Amino acid sequence: MTTRPDPPAPTDERLARAALTRTAEPGDEHAGRWLRHYGATGFLRELLHPGTARPAPSGPGTSRSDGDPFPGTGPRRVASWRLRAATAEPARDLDTVHALGGRFLIPGDTEWPSQLDDLGDARPLGLWVRGPADLRTWALRSVALVGARACTPYGAHTATGLATDLARKGWVVVSGAAYGIDGAAHRGALAADGATVAVLACGVDTPYPRGHDRLIRRIAEQGLVIGELPPRSHPTPSRFILRNRLIAALTRGTVVVEAQHRSGSLVTARAAARLGRHTMGVPGPVASALSAGVHELLRGDATLVTDADEIVELVGDMGQLAPPRRGPVLPRDLLAPATAHVLEAVPARGPTPTTAIARRAGTTPDATLAKLYELHSLGFVERHGEGWRLTNTTTRASNARRGGT
Amino acid sequence: MTTRPDPPAPTDERLARAALTRTAEPGDEHAGRWLRHYGATGFLRELLHPGTARPAPSGPGTSRSDGDPFPGTGPRRVASWRLRAATAEPARDLDTVHALGGRFLIPGDTEWPSQLDDLGDARPLGLWVRGPADLRTWALRSVALVGARACTPYGAHTATGLATDLARKGWVVVSGAAYGIDGAAHRGALAADGATVAVLACGVDTPYPRGHDRLIRRIAEQGLVIGELPPRSHPTPSRFILRNRLIAALTRGTVVVEAQHRSGSLVTARAAARLGRHTMGVPGPVASALSAGVHELLRGDATLVTDADEIVELVGDMGQLAPPRRGPVLPRDLLAPATAHVLEAVPARGPTPTTAIARRAGTTPDATLAKLYELHSLGFVERHGEGWRLTNTTTRASNARRGGT
Repeated sequence: MTTRPDPPAPTDERLARAALTRTAEPGDEHAGRWLRHYGATGFLRELLHPGTARPAPSGPGTSRSDGDPFPGTGPRRVASWRLRAATAEPARDLDTVHALGGRFLIPGDTEWPSQLDDLGDARPLGLWVRGPADLRTWALRSVALVGARACTPYGAHTATGLATDLARKGWVVVSGAAYGIDGAAHRGALAADGATVAVLACGVDTPYPRGHDRLIRRIAEQGLVIGELPPRSHPTPSRFILRNRLIAALTRGTVVVEAQHRSGSLVTARAAARLGRHTMGVPGPVASALSAGVHELLRGDATLVTDADEIVELVGDMGQLAPPRRGPVLPRDLLAPATAHVLEAVPARGPTPTTAIARRAGTTPDATLAKLYELHSLGFVERHGEGWRLTNTTTRASNARRGGT
Repeated sequence: MTTRPDPPAPTDERLARAALTRTAEPGDEHAGRWLRHYGATGFLRELLHPGTARPAPSGPGTSRSDGDPFPGTGPRRVASWRLRAATAEPARDLDTVHALGGRFLIPGDTEWPSQLDDLGDARPLGLWVRGPADLRTWALRSVALVGARACTPYGAHTATGLATDLARKGWVVVSGAAYGIDGAAHRGALAADGATVAVLACGVDTPYPRGHDRLIRRIAEQGLVIGELPPRSHPTPSRFILRNRLIAALTRGTVVVEAQHRSGSLVTARAAARLGRHTMGVPGPVASALSAGVHELLRGDATLVTDADEIVELVGDMGQLAPPRRGPVLPRDLLAPATAHVLEAVPARGPTPTTAIARRAGTTPDATLAKLYELHSLGFVERHGEGWRLTNTTTRASNARRGGT
């Protein structure tokens, strides 16, 4: 037996939240409630040192406050939290992910996707992230493409095609990195030099499934790999289910390509509907059990889609998130220096491939692609087939700066 | 050159309407309007003997009535009517169809399907009918199954399966007798010893397509073959289109199995929607051009269906047409003698095959089947798989009559 070192004092919000991602399961609304009540450091401190918090007001299920810091939350759940909080090593977890080139995002960070607030107390405590892109900006123009693990060739072919076409239209393809439809979706986006986000039900250092080790590593280079669970965490059935709410919340809509009755993909779609996101389904042969779940969805409120145009038509109505018609969302001066640098490298005329822009910017294609999709979300550039060009408003602004009309 | 005999004097409504089916094209709303205005005999008389009608009031498109009997209707159309009315031989047409065991129905006949009134002035002038069943009663529980001529094996297989299952559930399958989906639907119903109606865009003595000669003959024996056009009429593209409105109006809903963009089946579905009937579509692979039209429909207001249960769930809400929960729609005493005779032959217990009931009734299976579907529409019997049995209310009524409980 080895003696574990004492848990580090949660000196700040980020360390505390990192520890809490090891303490509570994703989507634990009780944890979310007490975090909201005590703050991250206060909640963690009370778990590590019982009695340090001032007593909480009575919560649901209690008739009075009797000094219980977590009224309404079962003692078994609290005991599990205390046990796990005591063994958390958030500084080590942060080091592990930093060593992989990753980061740990918390609410308030500029990269935090604020649409996750729609999850209420089930909002992630924090997000472990690997990859070169800005998650918040990417998520603004993202679509989830999910479906069956044991998909048919029809499903795989369709998912790949949709992902390729969505990527070509400048949309970010989000999925769960599973076998079957998920993998086909990621691969379709990667193949088109596109943007893709894998949302894992495990640690971002612990790719699952193992057979997608190489795929997930590639996504971490060209796209983003994210998850709620700290390093070395393994997936469980409930973690898969709860991961799905994150996919739904992050994106503007969820497309189900193939799903049997009672499939996890339908959970994602229903979560999307509850969150006010678009839910879409790709139909298939009626005798196929793998299309039965999708057809069930389509007999409800989901929209039938057959190609990327129809998906974009639905999710592309950006409402208040849409770039205004005149001028980009942000003044150029507010862009991060690395992003502004890539924008400068986009030629004024004609679509230019990512690699050419990367050469002009003197950075890698992966880093350039990450910035280009950000610039796309912000309305500075457009994707045309395999190339990128400045939007009309950007061109006009550039001309103005250069003294043109 | 042969000299045609003078047209027979239109001595009554039926003869006049028979002549008018040769005079005006199906769905001609001008003809419908003047028929409503002058009556069938008056309209025909004015066409045969111009000037015999009192002048009509001014119609749309005219500023005043100047003695024109058909104001608002173009002179070319009227000239065509006059020409065709002069060559009509309604008595001969009636003889031709009677010789085939058929009949000519007009509004007011007990067998006339009153839901055709929903077509307004485009209501058929009359219906030429072959087959042993009562059209009005059959149409009460009917569904249209239509689709592409050049269908895929997937479409044909699906249409046959749906038709078989609908027939087993006691529903009448209506289609257009074309190659492809239509033929598959009729065959599926026939194979299940079921009820099916072929609505032709030509004369009921002139099967089209020729390759379906035998199929249409079989439908005329076991089901019904109907159409608006008099004997020896051939189909034209516009007649196909106008035939579709009749399929839509006759049935409680239209299911499209496979259809390309701009397919005639979509015309039927849209006509059904305009008439307040249910429109349904069977999805397929998204890359299949033959499912593209159906998917287009499903992205609108049509309902996605994958099996007969889902179809019946939708169209089975019979509203005021539904048999009341207690007691059949009609007292037995009001049934036609031949129908009552078949009802008497249905055993009190257990589902009994059509052939066994036919033996007990001493009639042919085809004639028996026709009556059984009528009795089904009227709530006296139910179909269970390959057999028929009395409904609970019928059984109770029989028991009461026999002194039971």
